[in-house]
Amino acid sequence: MKKIINKPEDVVHEMLKGLKDSRPETIGLIDKKRIVYRKDPYLNKVGIISGSGSGHEPDQAFYVGKGMLDAACAGPVFAAPTLDAIVDAARMVDRGRGVLFLVKNYTGDRAYFEMASEMLAFEGGPTVETVIINDDVAVKDSTFTAGRRGVAGAILVYKIVGAKSEEGANLDALKQLALEVNSNVRTMGFALKPCTTPEKGSPTFSLGADEIEIGVGLHGEPGRERTTYKRANIIIKTLTDAVLKDLPFTSGDEVALMINGLGGTPIGELYIAAGITHNLLKDSGIRVHKTYVNNYCTSLDMEGCSVTLLKLNEEYKRLLASPAEIPISYF
Amino acid sequence: MKKIINKPEDVVHEMLKGLKDSRPETIGLIDKKRIVYRKDPYLNKVGIISGSGSGHEPDQAFYVGKGMLDAACAGPVFAAPTLDAIVDAARMVDRGRGVLFLVKNYTGDRAYFEMASEMLAFEGGPTVETVIINDDVAVKDSTFTAGRRGVAGAILVYKIVGAKSEEGANLDALKQLALEVNSNVRTMGFALKPCTTPEKGSPTFSLGADEIEIGVGLHGEPGRERTTYKRANIIIKTLTDAVLKDLPFTSGDEVALMINGLGGTPIGELYIAAGITHNLLKDSGIRVHKTYVNNYCTSLDMEGCSVTLLKLNEEYKRLLASPAEIPISYF
Repeated sequence: MKKIINKPEDVVHEMLKGLKDSRPETIGLIDKKRIVYRKDPYLNKVGIISGSGSGHEPDQAFYVGKGMLDAACAGPVFAAPTLDAIVDAARMVDRGRGVLFLVKNYTGDRAYFEMASEMLAFEGGPTVETVIINDDVAVKDSTFTAGRRGVAGAILVYKIVGAKSEEGANLDALKQLALEVNSNVRTMGFALKPCTTPEKGSPTFSLGADEIEIGVGLHGEPGRERTTYKRANIIIKTLTDAVLKDLPFTSGDEVALMINGLGGTPIGELYIAAGITHNLLKDSGIRVHKTYVNNYCTSLDMEGCSVTLLKLNEEYKRLLASPAEIPISYF
Repeated sequence: MKKIINKPEDVVHEMLKGLKDSRPETIGLIDKKRIVYRKDPYLNKVGIISGSGSGHEPDQAFYVGKGMLDAACAGPVFAAPTLDAIVDAARMVDRGRGVLFLVKNYTGDRAYFEMASEMLAFEGGPTVETVIINDDVAVKDSTFTAGRRGVAGAILVYKIVGAKSEEGANLDALKQLALEVNSNVRTMGFALKPCTTPEKGSPTFSLGADEIEIGVGLHGEPGRERTTYKRANIIIKTLTDAVLKDLPFTSGDEVALMINGLGGTPIGELYIAAGITHNLLKDSGIRVHKTYVNNYCTSLDMEGCSVTLLKLNEEYKRLLASPAEIPISYF
């Protein structure tokens, strides 16, 4: 295993330290608990928190900032954040208007966020609501998940809900909005090559030299089909068709399209996927209002990508367009 | 070879088509000549153009927009853009105030940009100046280069010069600024794993399972040393020391730091490198004003990163901070 790391057990701490060093004015870090939080002052808004195992960067720590998340709780690589980190983060971001947890659907993450909610309720606050994100259409249940997995669609949920929270919406309204966005977003991905966790030092699953995994999960969980490598037009059509059919998206719909790289795939290949998807959507009579192409929710060094569609309305369009002051921006 | 592509010969066209589809309001494409240009109207500014072989995305096509480049000429993967594309692009972006070519130092690219300048001079305009960027401290000459190579430091040149061009600076002033920024920026990179070009279908060079290449070039050209894999602290110190020593950067300097991923390395590892570099710079008494961490100038799917330092003044800081409306942004 060759990676830009020191000891495997220090990977997450060193990464978050690099984040804090790189954005000292805007990003705070409670290193011991792996809590990343906004340092800029804010009042009169509901706190928005997400969290999960690390290894999905920029998700979530790199989305902390005005217009998106107020804090992120990072677990070890591919393992849930701790209960006390979530509880502390909720207290930190609360401004008297409550806290919304946005959690991708994995059993471990859900359990810890639910326990944190119960503990906070027992201890008298802050008021917490939780929305589980489950946009992955690939499989019904999965290795670490009862029900559908949460994947790249989560980023669009953070973006829309985060923007709305800056406008002063209350906790109930934000919860309803998050549920609604989640119900309108669908994703499916595939892997060309598996990822290697630093602790294990070898791939989390194996793929033959000529194999791909259609519908792969964010930790390398099995998808719908292990098949032979095919050219991009065929793979991307498989993903897009599965996504379209699921909601279903139909002619006349207006959507946001996200092509999400899984970590090890170059930007250029992601744009090839974007061009193919645009053709397919045009053929289906679906209008793309906005396209997102980058690494948004990754699986360490996994190669491959996912296709996400979000059915839009005027409110979502407005909130997607509002600025997000997040550390991952290029300039 | 498993990549998100159709035919190798269509990779660049399909990628640029995906870019245009994804940013239809702001990005224009002359597909046949692989010219990417700004669609928003602008007047009274010098045109800024860059170009090179493809495979370094987001460099350069994805930096076309207000505040950076007015057009980019993309060649085939790792091969120079054509003469007529450069000539056409210069005519397209000229608003009567001339055109500045910002070119990374590779023999092929230089030759075509120089021929284009001569042809435009012969044909009566527009007036063109060229600045060659050569920030890579690794080696004196290289496989495709007489003199030092141009690498990730180029992005900071585009950013500063592009911002200044929006303020109406004239061609001479912009040329001087580009020369000055180039003389204050230094970079060195390393590879954990080589890249695979679509046409060749196999790595451009070979690295043993336990080897790394210190000072690698953007196309896999040899660097200073082929050595055994080491932990991040040691590798990043080697890069940073080489960069510091070269200008030299000294205690009291204020810098911009760029940790540039080479294409296949996850964001998380780049931030580990950023944290290490921050420690080293602090120890050297150098103050980091701004940190850039992402894939800025890549080599397809190569794994590894580079460290860039730019010695700052107030003018550079102001220009780096001004907005750039470029297609690669996350939101």
